Amino acid sequence: MSATEEEQTPVPNQVTEERIRVRYGETDQMGHAYYANYLYWFEQARGAWCRDRGFTDKALEAQGYLMPAVEAHLRYKGEVKYDDWIVVRVWVEQIRRSAMQFQYEILNETTGKIVTEGYTWHVWVGQTKTAITIPAEIRALLNRKPGEYERLP
Amino acid sequence: MSATEEEQTPVPNQVTEERIRVRYGETDQMGHAYYANYLYWFEQARGAWCRDRGFTDKALEAQGYLMPAVEAHLRYKGEVKYDDWIVVRVWVEQIRRSAMQFQYEILNETTGKIVTEGYTWHVWVGQTKTAITIPAEIRALLNRKPGEYERLP
Amino acid sequence: MSATEEEQTPVPNQVTEERIRVRYGETDQMGHAYYANYLYWFEQARGAWCRDRGFTDKALEAQGYLMPAVEAHLRYKGEVKYDDWIVVRVWVEQIRRSAMQFQYEILNETTGKIVTEGYTWHVWVGQTKTAITIPAEIRALLNRKPGEYERLP
Amino acid sequence: MSATEEEQTPVPNQVTEERIRVRYGETDQMGHAYYANYLYWFEQARGAWCRDRGFTDKALEAQGYLMPAVEAHLRYKGEVKYDDWIVVRVWVEQIRRSAMQFQYEILNETTGKIVTEGYTWHVWVGQTKTAITIPAEIRALLNRKPGEYERLP
Repeated sequence: MSATEEEQTPVPNQVTEERIRVRYGETDQMGHAYYANYLYWFEQARGAWCRDRGFTDKALEAQGYLMPAVEAHLRYKGEVKYDDWIVVRVWVEQIRRSAMQFQYEILNETTGKIVTEGYTWHVWVGQTKTAITIPAEIRALLNRKPGEYERLP
Repeated sequence: MSATEEEQTPVPNQVTEERIRVRYGETDQMGHAYYANYLYWFEQARGAWCRDRGFTDKALEAQGYLMPAVEAHLRYKGEVKYDDWIVVRVWVEQIRRSAMQFQYEILNETTGKIVTEGYTWHVWVGQTKTAITIPAEIRALLNRKPGEYERLP
Repeated sequence: MSATEEEQTPVPNQVTEERIRVRYGETDQMGHAYYANYLYWFEQARGAWCRDRGFTDKALEAQGYLMPAVEAHLRYKGEVKYDDWIVVRVWVEQIRRSAMQFQYEILNETTGKIVTEGYTWHVWVGQTKTAITIPAEIRALLNRKPGEYERLP
Repeated sequence: MSATEEEQTPVPNQVTEERIRVRYGETDQMGHAYYANYLYWFEQARGAWCRDRGFTDKALEAQGYLMPAVEAHLRYKGEVKYDDWIVVRVWVEQIRRSAMQFQYEILNETTGKIVTEGYTWHVWVGQTKTAITIPAEIRALLNRKPGEYERLP
């Protein structure tokens, strides 16, 4: 993200947690989860983050709003193995004019350790497939607090 | 496939070969390629089968013609490991009114053994997302013989 | 499976259900779940099947017992889309001397339709990486009935 | 990586290129390659980087040397679609006492644009599964120049 883009909406670090069991097919021959799978887990946690605020990214996408990733960062700090239960903690760290940053922390419940940290940046894109200023109605959704809205199933 | 659907176009079993190197991320903790990855390799071989006949499924899809899989079968007979070179042999076994069957055989070049056999059935679908009779111009493409047409890069 | 292998232990078709939400990364540009992902879901359901009977395949693997897939079959009958909740129903259909067959049925909760049917065959393999007669203590696990044992978390 | 770890071996930025065709199963419903797949492509390019210098990471792994990723960073700058040919350019940017950094640039041949930049950090791990000082014989491999050694098939 350009450093000159002005941050407009500080968002409290309200965390959503998503619990995921590691699949056999997500391991590699080293015996750990392959390093690409964490990005699937981040994605699943983002979906939960939305549902926690009473909306779905699927519904926004049906209206023509997409939020493709433009940047991702991961630090692999500990072991994640087959059948482990992990908890992905996700929160929005920054919302700018047309982009937003999610941060993540993964707890391996089975070992009790924080095993991963990371972030992703996403740009909001509209029907024309170009970056848009986040519309007010979407910004309102993003600023919702979990607990105020019923978590969608 | 319904046994009552009449086979209309016997196609000589002309084989296309696609060479693929096994990725680390395609292994699992058992030390072999995970069993789902073979369906990715089958798909890549189908793409090569089309290019061998001078067209691409991508171009057909751009025209609104899709060929989703409706059935898949795999027999895992031997070892496939990281960094192995495999050769996927693919040919069309049957073409019916609206469906076609690809058959596959995977040779592990590194071990010299046939390690997998399988097939997939695909239905042709048009703009309305429902099954269609395969149009004459597509049927003509499917009946091309490799060698008569330049393999697309 | 060889037809001459004698079936030794008929197992009642006791079904375990595993509920899975479809990930964005599991879709393809056709807008549906890519056809290989079903094999990941089958695998996750097999893990739940074991936990339903008070044991884990992970623990058996730690003891040197593996059950690699030797055959897989899938019929794709209906739509599975991003964010859908699916329920994978899994049961053991046959147990032979050294092999066993799982059968599967996937219900798309979001649409209410049965969208997939399939089966997989697995051979039991021991420390020497060759097929073994299923040991009595493992056979006892496989013949457990869900409900008699506490489902593992 | 700790900033206090001293860089010991500046390595000329000698680039290896790996050409990859994008699979259908690597796309998502947005119509682009899903953001996790780039880490698979980075991995495939690292394998090519080794072969370009006359050795394989597979052979090192067989000797007990692993190089798990401890950090990854990706910037998604442009479109990658089904059937596109991409070229992953990979080079080693830093080699420290027990860790090394690969950098990557992906060119989409089909569009002619640089579509991705990234890096990964890897720690060398030995039989005991703990970080080791990179052994002299491995350091010698890492400092090889492509062209001096025959590229392995």
